[in-house]
Amino acid sequence: MRVLGVDPGLRNMGWGVIDVKGSRITHVGNGICHSSSGTLADRLLSLHRQLTDVITQFSPETAAVEQTFVNKDAVATLKLGQARGIALLVPAQAGLEVGEYAPNAVKKAVVGVGHAAKAQVDHMVRLQLPGVNIAGPDAADALAVALCHAHYAQSAGRLAAAVKAAT
Amino acid sequence: MRVLGVDPGLRNMGWGVIDVKGSRITHVGNGICHSSSGTLADRLLSLHRQLTDVITQFSPETAAVEQTFVNKDAVATLKLGQARGIALLVPAQAGLEVGEYAPNAVKKAVVGVGHAAKAQVDHMVRLQLPGVNIAGPDAADALAVALCHAHYAQSAGRLAAAVKAAT
Repeated sequence: MRVLGVDPGLRNMGWGVIDVKGSRITHVGNGICHSSSGTLADRLLSLHRQLTDVITQFSPETAAVEQTFVNKDAVATLKLGQARGIALLVPAQAGLEVGEYAPNAVKKAVVGVGHAAKAQVDHMVRLQLPGVNIAGPDAADALAVALCHAHYAQSAGRLAAAVKAAT
Repeated sequence: MRVLGVDPGLRNMGWGVIDVKGSRITHVGNGICHSSSGTLADRLLSLHRQLTDVITQFSPETAAVEQTFVNKDAVATLKLGQARGIALLVPAQAGLEVGEYAPNAVKKAVVGVGHAAKAQVDHMVRLQLPGVNIAGPDAADALAVALCHAHYAQSAGRLAAAVKAAT
């Protein structure tokens, strides 16, 4: 199963792709879609194109997007929401199911605790994907989202298999 | 000039299309894109398809989207942001420039004051587009955004013409 993880942002949208075969997880690619200039519509269009290119290049079979942290700055929340709309739309347009995970769920799946520091997440991503070159913090977060999605998908698979075996 | 106005929302996204020839403004169409069920990604995908169909059907030359009211409910702001991302993306994908207007600017252009009630906006939209059948409040708001965009585009055009004549 090839998994795309996305860490949404208007200026920097991180993405990461991993392959999952049983318990074996390998890194496929990661990077950051940038949009820093132009009108808001132009920036969203640029992010849409870049993320569409990622899907065309890597053909993921499932995707997950980090749930935006809702902070107290409404203007920032709105900006993030607009970028997040694109992050959810692009894989849906490619026919993929799109999972959503809260930051704490991602940290818990990758580090083991929900309130891990950013550096710890980065460290555990590198441990689980040996030799990976990470394009930046947003790409590390995106890989963590992909790892989290793989973790939950595997758990769900094991649960389904156990239920099937027991009935 | 054919103008598309959009009032973004996740459940109901209003749209309105008008034709502007000099000072003559005529109604072309209006409606509401609905998305009430499914995952968030599915709903955004559905809105994207419906709004793309509107552009395909009516071929507007320019577009404008209402600036989302940033309220104190961060969850609602985030939802609106995601829908707004789609509202900005779709006309940009069609190669249109996308104007953005704050709700007060729309009210000022259509009613004459920035703090007009919703019913007043609806009334003035109907006055300016005689005989129009409006699909609902969100479609009325979208037509108001289109009227506002036409107003500013005409002012900008007149200004440019005056500058040209004076030099």
